[in-house]
Amino acid sequence: MAKNGTQKSQEKAQEIYLTAAQIFFTKGYNACSLNDIAEALNITKAGLYYYVESKQSLLFEIVNLGLDSVDREVLEPARNIGDAEERLRFIIFNHARLCAGGNHAVIIISHEINELNFYQREEVLKRRRDYFDFVRNTIIELQNEEKLTEVDITTATFTLLGMILWLSRWYRPNGKMSVKKVCEDVCEMALRSLLREKN
Amino acid sequence: MAKNGTQKSQEKAQEIYLTAAQIFFTKGYNACSLNDIAEALNITKAGLYYYVESKQSLLFEIVNLGLDSVDREVLEPARNIGDAEERLRFIIFNHARLCAGGNHAVIIISHEINELNFYQREEVLKRRRDYFDFVRNTIIELQNEEKLTEVDITTATFTLLGMILWLSRWYRPNGKMSVKKVCEDVCEMALRSLLREKN
Repeated sequence: MAKNGTQKSQEKAQEIYLTAAQIFFTKGYNACSLNDIAEALNITKAGLYYYVESKQSLLFEIVNLGLDSVDREVLEPARNIGDAEERLRFIIFNHARLCAGGNHAVIIISHEINELNFYQREEVLKRRRDYFDFVRNTIIELQNEEKLTEVDITTATFTLLGMILWLSRWYRPNGKMSVKKVCEDVCEMALRSLLREKN
Repeated sequence: MAKNGTQKSQEKAQEIYLTAAQIFFTKGYNACSLNDIAEALNITKAGLYYYVESKQSLLFEIVNLGLDSVDREVLEPARNIGDAEERLRFIIFNHARLCAGGNHAVIIISHEINELNFYQREEVLKRRRDYFDFVRNTIIELQNEEKLTEVDITTATFTLLGMILWLSRWYRPNGKMSVKKVCEDVCEMALRSLLREKN
């Protein structure tokens, strides 16, 4: 957590979180130290301690930053979309965009949370569950509209999220395929996997 | 690696690998020691060293055991299936069955391989690539038969594997849903996500 409230300090804290998220993702949380992070940021370890209390609190800040991005760019706008199918399409495309676009704070939400302490973990699991339930309820709406195929709702929700979250494991944003194209394809596959044929 | 060739010793080695795989999966490779594994097996650390050279060599044995299972139960039987759609259905269902059934040696194939040394990692990546290419080639066959939707082949292959591999993250084999039912649903979703409507 930033130790003073100025905007400059907050921006520096954000830069630290995003760099640390990338290092945690690449090397694994356990395999890297605050020294590695200070080095990547070209600051001293004492300088880093001005912004973070410990490696664990840094991880907690990063996960929350990622969850904030999902709230702001996926969940909140989706709440304003009345039609369930259109809402699901929005959720898939925009969550995929965050994962494929290389936002490591978003990617880390589904990794490493075992490294948090009990209270931090409970808070993160609560936020993840809220998101899961929102997606699940959207799928239930589609079922009520008789648009859904005959699959179990829980399996459908997790498998849908698996397609999206797996992007961070294989897609490289600097390769020849654009983020837009890969998200469109994942969105197309995910909707086809869930929805009945329209005819 | 087992240090003698008797069957009893090989069976004990397998038991060690599967227990260790479960512990690595649950706690994370970095967070657990050979002591934890010896304790779970109720043997001494010296007893464990009779079967394994080091934590890293143990991980390598486990990953290879998992890859052997995929070869034996998915890849090899699938090679004998002429029809591409039927072959893909077999691959999805049986790979899903290994992941959902709680075979931690199979699950660990897609985790932790950064912890292997260079030569071990290259060998594992080669085996994973061979599997990926086999699935990808099956999808290309479906494209040639004009059965595939308009999605990028690489995206299709990775996203399909994501649906299957994600099972190990959420599905618990002792819950109320059977392994068979969850694998059927994932299979149904995966095929729908890829194949054109039949009419």
